Amino acid sequence: MKTVKIGLLGLGNIGTGTVKALEMNRTQITKAAGAELEIVKILDRHPERKRDIDVKPEQFVSDIDDIVNDPEIDVVIELLGGVEPAATFMRKALEKGKHVVSANKAAIAANFDTLTAAAEKGGAMFLYEASVAGGIPVLNAIRCALGANEFGEVLGILNGTTNYILTQMTEKGETYADALKDAQVKGFAEPDPTADVEGHDVANKLTILMALAFDKYVKPEDIPTTGISGVTAEDIAAAKAEGCCIKLIASAKKTADGVEYSIAPQRIPLSHPLAGVKNEFNAVYVTGNAVGELMFYGKGAGPLPTASAVLGDVIQIANHIG
Amino acid sequence: MKTVKIGLLGLGNIGTGTVKALEMNRTQITKAAGAELEIVKILDRHPERKRDIDVKPEQFVSDIDDIVNDPEIDVVIELLGGVEPAATFMRKALEKGKHVVSANKAAIAANFDTLTAAAEKGGAMFLYEASVAGGIPVLNAIRCALGANEFGEVLGILNGTTNYILTQMTEKGETYADALKDAQVKGFAEPDPTADVEGHDVANKLTILMALAFDKYVKPEDIPTTGISGVTAEDIAAAKAEGCCIKLIASAKKTADGVEYSIAPQRIPLSHPLAGVKNEFNAVYVTGNAVGELMFYGKGAGPLPTASAVLGDVIQIANHIG
Repeated sequence: MKTVKIGLLGLGNIGTGTVKALEMNRTQITKAAGAELEIVKILDRHPERKRDIDVKPEQFVSDIDDIVNDPEIDVVIELLGGVEPAATFMRKALEKGKHVVSANKAAIAANFDTLTAAAEKGGAMFLYEASVAGGIPVLNAIRCALGANEFGEVLGILNGTTNYILTQMTEKGETYADALKDAQVKGFAEPDPTADVEGHDVANKLTILMALAFDKYVKPEDIPTTGISGVTAEDIAAAKAEGCCIKLIASAKKTADGVEYSIAPQRIPLSHPLAGVKNEFNAVYVTGNAVGELMFYGKGAGPLPTASAVLGDVIQIANHIG
Repeated sequence: MKTVKIGLLGLGNIGTGTVKALEMNRTQITKAAGAELEIVKILDRHPERKRDIDVKPEQFVSDIDDIVNDPEIDVVIELLGGVEPAATFMRKALEKGKHVVSANKAAIAANFDTLTAAAEKGGAMFLYEASVAGGIPVLNAIRCALGANEFGEVLGILNGTTNYILTQMTEKGETYADALKDAQVKGFAEPDPTADVEGHDVANKLTILMALAFDKYVKPEDIPTTGISGVTAEDIAAAKAEGCCIKLIASAKKTADGVEYSIAPQRIPLSHPLAGVKNEFNAVYVTGNAVGELMFYGKGAGPLPTASAVLGDVIQIANHIG
């Protein structure tokens, strides 16, 4: 049986989760991939850190060239986070013909064209299922299983923090400030919640979704974005009175002139499938001119859901090169 | 650009929908497949039938051997319906190394092992996304994007007729008999509704889901199956009083001893994502030990949703052989 050799960039929370998932489900993964997956090199500045996974000091490297120039390595998994140096490392790897899997929404959204061009140039696959909606396999579906559709509309609940806060405000009548505090205590919101509550996190994801569904690249900072910090208990009560709830919706719609897009709190009728997406869950609702309405629902974050998506991409690559 | 040549078995409702979707979305499909898809031969007894699609009399053949022995043909799409001769035709095609795409739940469920063995023997791909939950790309997800998971539970609402009837009973307080009549008038139920309302249609789909998620083949007739004809307005009211609704659930769960499976009306708490799946919609809820809870929601039937799944499978094959 073939072995697919992997260079891993970044052994933080998500990287450690990925190694754990690979150990935990090795039988399933080998069967699905038709190959053994082996992490041969790891780029991380902290080889000494205690991680509760089976990695050896000699696997660690500190120079990206040790990975992108290693002819043995088939796949580079990028889990560094942040735009740079992640984007440069991915570009280098792709240009050298290494297949790249990434969970890094910020780096991909900021460099979508550069990275897809590098993949083309290197004849390599570039997959990033984990960058949007965590473990939910919606990008693969849009790219492949739904490839026989013209998409009309993509609506996403793509941020667990804001969905948790809005759900608490709706179900318990809490104010925004109280619900945010509750989310921070429960670990669903960061001490500085700006990137989540103001919608910037979601903008990266909508950039990627639009690029795939509509072949249209819009920089995240060019998407009109309103967060949830202005949503009041009164807004939610008024929506309820009209049979609606309020969700932070990332929206892209095909129009006669192109694509309309925005991120904003929207009233969603309770009869719409997105209305049932509560707390930290994410969902993507898509319409296609053949398939009609679809919704994908699940966990949008966390080390193991993210690892599921990352390893799913590696399985696809293994199937392709096997 | 490569052309992928297709032999189509069956030009009824679903076959016609597939040809229509291919014409309607040719640009998207060619891009996703990286190849032109061309239907070169059609096996159907009624070439003369008026169909409102662009097919020529000389494309029609009446002998399966004209397709499986044609060295030009890469892919056979089987949309005949019924167990035989569909299963034999698929086996022949696979053994000859033709990739096969099918929407035929009955033929696949009855012959799962034979057909997968034939695919192995012929070195061919055998894909059947459309056979379960129509346009919802759940089989591809289980097989590939979620391949890094051990699955715990698969729960499906897999029949639009029964879900429509139960939704009407729940929302309008109708009796089973009245809701069935209403479904028949609206075209959601057949004049003889037995296969739907007694759960036999769902059994074929659960057989296929279990084979993929748990690597366990159970004949559809060996799945304990209870339909919805015994569900009363009182049952629904009693469920409602406890914060639940009643759904016809196809269920398979991993246990210490293997897999437990059944098809039966079940109480679903209103907080569960399956509770929001109404009328003719289908959904599959899956748990994986890495990804956690997921749900896939959409149209489970109809010529265009089915065509979306069929052509999605052909796109995958084109990517693979391209």
